[in-house]
Amino acid sequence: EEQIIIKDQHTKEIDLVNRDPKHINEDVVKVDFEDVIAEPVGTYSFDGVWKTSYTTFTVSKYWCYRLLSAVLGIPLAVVWGFLFALISFCHIWAVVPCIKSYLIEIQCVSRIYSLCIHTFCDPLFEALSKICSNVRVALRKEI
Amino acid sequence: EEQIIIKDQHTKEIDLVNRDPKHINEDVVKVDFEDVIAEPVGTYSFDGVWKTSYTTFTVSKYWCYRLLSAVLGIPLAVVWGFLFALISFCHIWAVVPCIKSYLIEIQCVSRIYSLCIHTFCDPLFEALSKICSNVRVALRKEI
Amino acid sequence: EEQIIIKDQHTKEIDLVNRDPKHINEDVVKVDFEDVIAEPVGTYSFDGVWKTSYTTFTVSKYWCYRLLSAVLGIPLAVVWGFLFALISFCHIWAVVPCIKSYLIEIQCVSRIYSLCIHTFCDPLFEALSKICSNVRVALRKEI
Amino acid sequence: EEQIIIKDQHTKEIDLVNRDPKHINEDVVKVDFEDVIAEPVGTYSFDGVWKTSYTTFTVSKYWCYRLLSAVLGIPLAVVWGFLFALISFCHIWAVVPCIKSYLIEIQCVSRIYSLCIHTFCDPLFEALSKICSNVRVALRKEI
Amino acid sequence: EEQIIIKDQHTKEIDLVNRDPKHINEDVVKVDFEDVIAEPVGTYSFDGVWKTSYTTFTVSKYWCYRLLSAVLGIPLAVVWGFLFALISFCHIWAVVPCIKSYLIEIQCVSRIYSLCIHTFCDPLFEALSKICSNVRVALRKEI
Amino acid sequence: EEQIIIKDQHTKEIDLVNRDPKHINEDVVKVDFEDVIAEPVGTYSFDGVWKTSYTTFTVSKYWCYRLLSAVLGIPLAVVWGFLFALISFCHIWAVVPCIKSYLIEIQCVSRIYSLCIHTFCDPLFEALSKICSNVRVALRKEI
Amino acid sequence: EEQIIIKDQHTKEIDLVNRDPKHINEDVVKVDFEDVIAEPVGTYSFDGVWKTSYTTFTVSKYWCYRLLSAVLGIPLAVVWGFLFALISFCHIWAVVPCIKSYLIEIQCVSRIYSLCIHTFCDPLFEALSKICSNVRVALRKEI
Amino acid sequence: EEQIIIKDQHTKEIDLVNRDPKHINEDVVKVDFEDVIAEPVGTYSFDGVWKTSYTTFTVSKYWCYRLLSAVLGIPLAVVWGFLFALISFCHIWAVVPCIKSYLIEIQCVSRIYSLCIHTFCDPLFEALSKICSNVRVALRKEI
Amino acid sequence: EEQIIIKDQHTKEIDLVNRDPKHINEDVVKVDFEDVIAEPVGTYSFDGVWKTSYTTFTVSKYWCYRLLSAVLGIPLAVVWGFLFALISFCHIWAVVPCIKSYLIEIQCVSRIYSLCIHTFCDPLFEALSKICSNVRVALRKEI
Amino acid sequence: EEQIIIKDQHTKEIDLVNRDPKHINEDVVKVDFEDVIAEPVGTYSFDGVWKTSYTTFTVSKYWCYRLLSAVLGIPLAVVWGFLFALISFCHIWAVVPCIKSYLIEIQCVSRIYSLCIHTFCDPLFEALSKICSNVRVALRKEI
Amino acid sequence: EEQIIIKDQHTKEIDLVNRDPKHINEDVVKVDFEDVIAEPVGTYSFDGVWKTSYTTFTVSKYWCYRLLSAVLGIPLAVVWGFLFALISFCHIWAVVPCIKSYLIEIQCVSRIYSLCIHTFCDPLFEALSKICSNVRVALRKEI
Repeated sequence: EEQIIIKDQHTKEIDLVNRDPKHINEDVVKVDFEDVIAEPVGTYSFDGVWKTSYTTFTVSKYWCYRLLSAVLGIPLAVVWGFLFALISFCHIWAVVPCIKSYLIEIQCVSRIYSLCIHTFCDPLFEALSKICSNVRVALRKEI
Repeated sequence: EEQIIIKDQHTKEIDLVNRDPKHINEDVVKVDFEDVIAEPVGTYSFDGVWKTSYTTFTVSKYWCYRLLSAVLGIPLAVVWGFLFALISFCHIWAVVPCIKSYLIEIQCVSRIYSLCIHTFCDPLFEALSKICSNVRVALRKEI
Repeated sequence: EEQIIIKDQHTKEIDLVNRDPKHINEDVVKVDFEDVIAEPVGTYSFDGVWKTSYTTFTVSKYWCYRLLSAVLGIPLAVVWGFLFALISFCHIWAVVPCIKSYLIEIQCVSRIYSLCIHTFCDPLFEALSKICSNVRVALRKEI
Repeated sequence: EEQIIIKDQHTKEIDLVNRDPKHINEDVVKVDFEDVIAEPVGTYSFDGVWKTSYTTFTVSKYWCYRLLSAVLGIPLAVVWGFLFALISFCHIWAVVPCIKSYLIEIQCVSRIYSLCIHTFCDPLFEALSKICSNVRVALRKEI
Repeated sequence: EEQIIIKDQHTKEIDLVNRDPKHINEDVVKVDFEDVIAEPVGTYSFDGVWKTSYTTFTVSKYWCYRLLSAVLGIPLAVVWGFLFALISFCHIWAVVPCIKSYLIEIQCVSRIYSLCIHTFCDPLFEALSKICSNVRVALRKEI
Repeated sequence: EEQIIIKDQHTKEIDLVNRDPKHINEDVVKVDFEDVIAEPVGTYSFDGVWKTSYTTFTVSKYWCYRLLSAVLGIPLAVVWGFLFALISFCHIWAVVPCIKSYLIEIQCVSRIYSLCIHTFCDPLFEALSKICSNVRVALRKEI
Repeated sequence: EEQIIIKDQHTKEIDLVNRDPKHINEDVVKVDFEDVIAEPVGTYSFDGVWKTSYTTFTVSKYWCYRLLSAVLGIPLAVVWGFLFALISFCHIWAVVPCIKSYLIEIQCVSRIYSLCIHTFCDPLFEALSKICSNVRVALRKEI
Repeated sequence: EEQIIIKDQHTKEIDLVNRDPKHINEDVVKVDFEDVIAEPVGTYSFDGVWKTSYTTFTVSKYWCYRLLSAVLGIPLAVVWGFLFALISFCHIWAVVPCIKSYLIEIQCVSRIYSLCIHTFCDPLFEALSKICSNVRVALRKEI
Repeated sequence: EEQIIIKDQHTKEIDLVNRDPKHINEDVVKVDFEDVIAEPVGTYSFDGVWKTSYTTFTVSKYWCYRLLSAVLGIPLAVVWGFLFALISFCHIWAVVPCIKSYLIEIQCVSRIYSLCIHTFCDPLFEALSKICSNVRVALRKEI
Repeated sequence: EEQIIIKDQHTKEIDLVNRDPKHINEDVVKVDFEDVIAEPVGTYSFDGVWKTSYTTFTVSKYWCYRLLSAVLGIPLAVVWGFLFALISFCHIWAVVPCIKSYLIEIQCVSRIYSLCIHTFCDPLFEALSKICSNVRVALRKEI
Repeated sequence: EEQIIIKDQHTKEIDLVNRDPKHINEDVVKVDFEDVIAEPVGTYSFDGVWKTSYTTFTVSKYWCYRLLSAVLGIPLAVVWGFLFALISFCHIWAVVPCIKSYLIEIQCVSRIYSLCIHTFCDPLFEALSKICSNVRVALRKEI
């Protein structure tokens, strides 16, 4: 049974059209021609120049990304897989129990420290609070 | 009777499916492919590259964790068992009685210290409180 | 009659099941397997490894504590008994009378000191209070 | 007649059961076994060890205090008697008249000092009070 | 007639029972056995020890004070008599006329000083008051 | 006629019983035996000692003051008479005209100084007042 | 006609009884025997001493002042006359025209200085006013 | 299917009239003759000078921009295409997974750090809060 | 079609009368004779002097400006034309794409930095907020 | 016609009785005998001395002022006439035109400076305004 | 047509009576005899002196101003004419276009700078805002 879940997980069909189902990079990495270059009314370049600029920008960006991902994408996927497995193991078997034992010890320290502070600071600050215990305000309305 | 409780505790059937009944690590350690890598509309890699990336990430992460836990899991469980027994013993037989005796001693100090503070600071701050005892505010409404 | 009370106190039957009637250590020292180690969905170790980890943690913690308390518990009880008797004696016969006599002496000092402070600080701060005696505020409502 | 009152005072029967009628030490010096040592559910020592610990703590604390008070109690009572007589005498015949004469002298100083302060500080602070005499606040409600 | 008043004053019968008609020392100097030494429930000394402690404290304090006052009381009364006569004389014939003449002189100084302060500080602080003359507050209620 | 008023003034009958008609020293110089020495309940000296103390204090204070005033009173009266005449003369013929002429001179200084201050400080502080001219507060009620 | 007014002014009859028609020195210089020396109840000097003190004080003060004013009064009157004439002349013919011309010059300086301040400080302080433009307060009532 | 979307994207007809559909540069780069040079009433140049200035400004600006964009526009479009492809690749395959793993690690640190801070600072600041716990205000209305 | 718009723009008739249609320099550069020189009542110069001053000021200002604009106006128009074309080109083809790519990079930095700050500062400031959690105000109305 | 006005101005009859029609020096320079020297009841000088003082003060002040004004008045009037003519000329022909031209120049500086300040300070202070955007107040009424 | 307006402007009849139509110098430069020199009641100079002073002041001021303006007025008018023409030219043809181009450049800087500030300061100040998020106020009315 255990193996079945895993297999299901492995053979799940990937959605090739919508490749960002959790919207992580959608708004950040949005760089079409209109988002980057624009000419206001009154300062127009030649029509041919404008058309060629549009085409070269779009094509060069398209093929450059494809080649980079084809060459470097799969090795990076393997590396990230190993890394996240390692982080998960450390977190589950080492970090959380450490925090647990640390919690017990800090409570003793906290209790003694808190007593000291309340013993030595409270009288001082109660005395300080006398400064404000004598405010007298007289209000008068001018017509 | 005492031994029975312990045995019950030892032979309790473990839930192999839900292995985090107290939700300690559920949200923190959640690192599937969709949580980590995503392509926004307009910058898609080749379909084959995308599919292979998904598979390699999932498989490498899955087996890496299994092997690590199989090798290091049981020794770590023994170590944590001993450690928490030691911490419990120290806390019960040494730390708590210490805090108790410390509480008696600090009360004497606290009482004398509090008297000194009130004797020497109170008149000073009562005098300081005279600064605010003469506030006079005239309000006028401009039409 | 005096001896009887004491004897009652000594032969009082101890409750072996509930050993913390005043709830001193109940919440702090609570370290079962579920509180310490947990695997979230998606990163499960082998079933055998998980079961063995549970057993080894529970057993090692159980026997380690028992042996420690059997060896060190009774000597520590004697030591704490003597210590608290000593502290009680000092507190009753020496510390409290000292505080009492100290109280009489501090009242004289307090009275003279308070007079000086009021003599020399009050006029100064009453003069300072004139700063706030002339506040005039004009309110206007913008429509 | 004078001697009779004193004798009554001396031969007054002491209450041997309630030895703290003014509740001076009641809450502070309260250190039974349950207040000091406790085992939470899940970390119990052997039954025999627990019982023996209870007995040894109670007995050692009981006899230690009795012996200390039998040896040192009466000498300390004499010392405290002499000390409080001495403090009473000084307070009645020397300290209070001193404070009285000091009161007369401080009034003269106080009156001259107060005049100086009011003469030199009042005009300054009245001038300072002009800073706040021109506050103008316009309130506007945003819908 | 003058001499008669004095004699009346001298031969006035003293109240030997209530020796503090103006309640000067009543609350401060109150140090009976119960105010000083007390044993809480659970830490009782032997009955004999407790009784003897009570007696020795009361007796030693009683006789110590009596002897001290018998030896030193009357000389001290004479000294205080002379001292207060001297203080009265100085206060009546020297200090009060001095204060009177000082009052005349300080008024001249006060008037000139006050003019200077108002001349040089008022314009400055009136200018400073402009800082607050332009407060504009917009209030908005979020639903 | 002028001489008659003066003579009336000189031969005015003095009230020998009430010697402080303007209540200058009434409350300050009040030091009878009850105001100075008192024994609280429980710490009484011998009856004889107490009575003798009372008498010696009253008598010594009474005669000491009388002798001092008889010897030093009249010379001091002469000295104070001359002194106050001198002070009156200086105040009437020298100090008041000086203040008058000083008043004329300070008005010129005041007018020029005030102009400078208003010229150079007002624009600065009006600019500073812009800091508070843009306060916007949004209030929200949590249910 | 001009000379007549002056003569009227010179021969105006002086009121010899009320010599302070504008109440300049009335309250300040008031130093009779009752204002200066007083004996409270319980500390009376001999009757003869008291009477003699009164007489000597009044007489010495009376004649001392008369002699001083007879010798020094008229020269001082001449001096003050010349002085006030000089002050009047300087004030009328020199100081007031100076202030007038100074007023014209300071207005130019003031206008340029004010422009500089408003030019360079206003933008800065308007920017500073943004700090307070975002206050958001949430009120909650605890029951 | 994949190739079709891309082709559509490449052959999309460009709007040659409105060249800034997202209004990026519209308001910023608006520099006609009227926006730059103007003569107020009273200081007019010769009519011919004014007309020639208008023509030369418009023509020189028009042709200068056209030539620059014709020469440098297309190479810049290629460069920006490559650059944005590179940035997209780094962001998708390297930066986002890094942030994800960093998030897991910072949570552990955060939890321990937060406990320390609350253990050591909370008692101190609770003690400090006593300063304001004693404010007493007396209001009085002046009529 | 493209060329037509441009030509329209070039041959647009210029308004020779109103030469500041956007009111850029209207209020600032307004310096007629009445705005600059004026004589108040009482200090009038000779009539001829006043008339000649008016004429010379107006004429000299009028011709001086005309000559300057005739000589330097057209070259300056050419320079400003080239300059604004250059600025437009840089802004459109270089600066805006740079800002776009910079925006993507800063978001990564921002997210990590924000996490650090919230991790390390939030607990500290939450602890600090305890200072104000204990305000207690007692209001009293004086009649 | 011009000359006539001037002549009228020159031959205007001066009011010899009321010589301060604009009340410039009326209150300041008022120094009669009653304003300067006064004797309170109880400290009167001889009648002859008082009368002579009055006469000498009035006469010496009267003639001293007359002589000073006769000697120095007319030269001073000439000097002030020339001075005020000079000041008027400088103010009308030099200072006011200078301020006018300075006003044009400062407006340019002001506009650039204001932009810089708003560019660099506004974001900083808007960020600072976040400090106050999270105030949460809990009100509780103690009965 | 252009020349006609100018000529109208040049031959406009000047108002010789009211020479300050815009009220620039009216209040500032007002220095008649009554505004500068005045004698209060009681300190009058000889009648002849007073009359002569009035005449000399008025005459000397009148002719001094006339001569100065006759000599220096016309050259100054020429100088101011040239100066204001120069300032107008610089402002119109150089300063305003400079500001315009500077405006375009500062917007780029402003946008990048604002992003940096918001990225690095906002999290810090949001964390700081937690200090005020825990205010708790307890109100109590004293009767």
